[in-house]
Amino acid sequence: MADRSRNPEYNMSHKHRGIALIFNNEHFEDPHLKLRKGTHKDSENLGRALKQLGFQVKEYTDLCSEPIMKIIKEASGRDHSDCDCILIAILSHGKLNYIHAKDKAYPVESILSPFTAERCPSLAGKPKLFIIQACQGVLRDPGCHINRPESSERDNESFISYRIPLPADFLIASSTIPGYCSWRNTVEGSWFIQSLCKELDSFGKTRDVLTQMTFVAQRVAVNYESFDEFNPRLDGRKQISSTMSTLTRILFFRDKNDTSNDDTSNDYFKNK
Amino acid sequence: MADRSRNPEYNMSHKHRGIALIFNNEHFEDPHLKLRKGTHKDSENLGRALKQLGFQVKEYTDLCSEPIMKIIKEASGRDHSDCDCILIAILSHGKLNYIHAKDKAYPVESILSPFTAERCPSLAGKPKLFIIQACQGVLRDPGCHINRPESSERDNESFISYRIPLPADFLIASSTIPGYCSWRNTVEGSWFIQSLCKELDSFGKTRDVLTQMTFVAQRVAVNYESFDEFNPRLDGRKQISSTMSTLTRILFFRDKNDTSNDDTSNDYFKNK
Repeated sequence: MADRSRNPEYNMSHKHRGIALIFNNEHFEDPHLKLRKGTHKDSENLGRALKQLGFQVKEYTDLCSEPIMKIIKEASGRDHSDCDCILIAILSHGKLNYIHAKDKAYPVESILSPFTAERCPSLAGKPKLFIIQACQGVLRDPGCHINRPESSERDNESFISYRIPLPADFLIASSTIPGYCSWRNTVEGSWFIQSLCKELDSFGKTRDVLTQMTFVAQRVAVNYESFDEFNPRLDGRKQISSTMSTLTRILFFRDKNDTSNDDTSNDYFKNK
Repeated sequence: MADRSRNPEYNMSHKHRGIALIFNNEHFEDPHLKLRKGTHKDSENLGRALKQLGFQVKEYTDLCSEPIMKIIKEASGRDHSDCDCILIAILSHGKLNYIHAKDKAYPVESILSPFTAERCPSLAGKPKLFIIQACQGVLRDPGCHINRPESSERDNESFISYRIPLPADFLIASSTIPGYCSWRNTVEGSWFIQSLCKELDSFGKTRDVLTQMTFVAQRVAVNYESFDEFNPRLDGRKQISSTMSTLTRILFFRDKNDTSNDDTSNDYFKNK
């Protein structure tokens, strides 16, 4: 028998691609948190792109913290033996290390830690993918072509603490870097999810995931710049997306040869 | 003129590949910090591998914190217009967010922040690569095949704070994940640098850097396991390396077609 531990690519030939949970938060109880206009577009586009890649997608809108944690716990407790991987996407407001649910904020780690090899053995050795579209702070990147008056202080603020949980086979794709804001077009959706969906739609089945993420970063960096006719200080701001990886193999979402994705007999969501 | 901002690959056709600084610390003034036996092997192997890729390599052994910072500041202040990129490698003891110099610990961010696009404009848009071989904590990974008695507590300890600085075009390859130990063979060198050098020696010119890092993680995870005849509790421990990236293009170290690497007229180190 071949030594599968040295396969260059993850085994993506299980019966199912795996589940993709999208937690989309547009409305918040806290009056200081603005309506996230445009996020339904992100959720729709991302759901469509992930279905194209074979994921069983479930979108949750405007959930409070407790039901989110319940769903995460259920997903962690499931048997993923027939699945290639899992993907969880968060679309919300955020602050450093925290994501806002409808009622309150929850730590980023609480959606990551239930999927370690120890706590979710049927995903051990399989890719665990997290997409986080949320601010990680209040700083806005002016782009390096603009001299910041407060340059040296602000430089250090981008080097602030961030919690990352990276046992083997995790990938976290974040819309921004710790300390910084993410930008969202109120009609077209966020820069990051727009860029990600364009990449997945065009190259989702042909490029490996780390290469995709490199080009997502390029799309975000090159294609977008903020425009604010009422507040010129917010014009010309840039954003950079980031990737953290402990993947141990190359990850491709090539088409599955069989028709197992059409088989709903084992539908994860059938009883939901 | 073509829109170079959308090139899929970084421009690696400058006159020089760039400088690679290796800070190798074996001896420490603090009697609690053990001699890092085997690190000279890491430094030698890494220096050789990087020279093969065209880097102008300079190795510094057992420096104190102040000279390290002076060298970093000098490197940041230099004109890198003729260089493809920069690489800085740290081989030492570490703790969360800090690296030990001979005399005392310094923050990881102090070697990263001088190379942002604003503080080092001649490296703006070019890859800034950091290799960090150091513990990031005291935890030892028992590998997921072993049930940890203290599982739930320890799980959370891997989710501890970590400072990452990721403006555009940075890559940080770390020997381990936040909170965990790195392992080093006292004859052959550390697991991570051994794995990295094997990857660079075999595929340094043919695989892109993120793919290389994926296979480094695989080599570390698959090829190594601790063995301690005197302390069975330290047997069977595993390690996982991690990569953080804001690269916006694919990065290859293909052979340069010209002979500019033989040209020492612009030798960065000639006056050192």
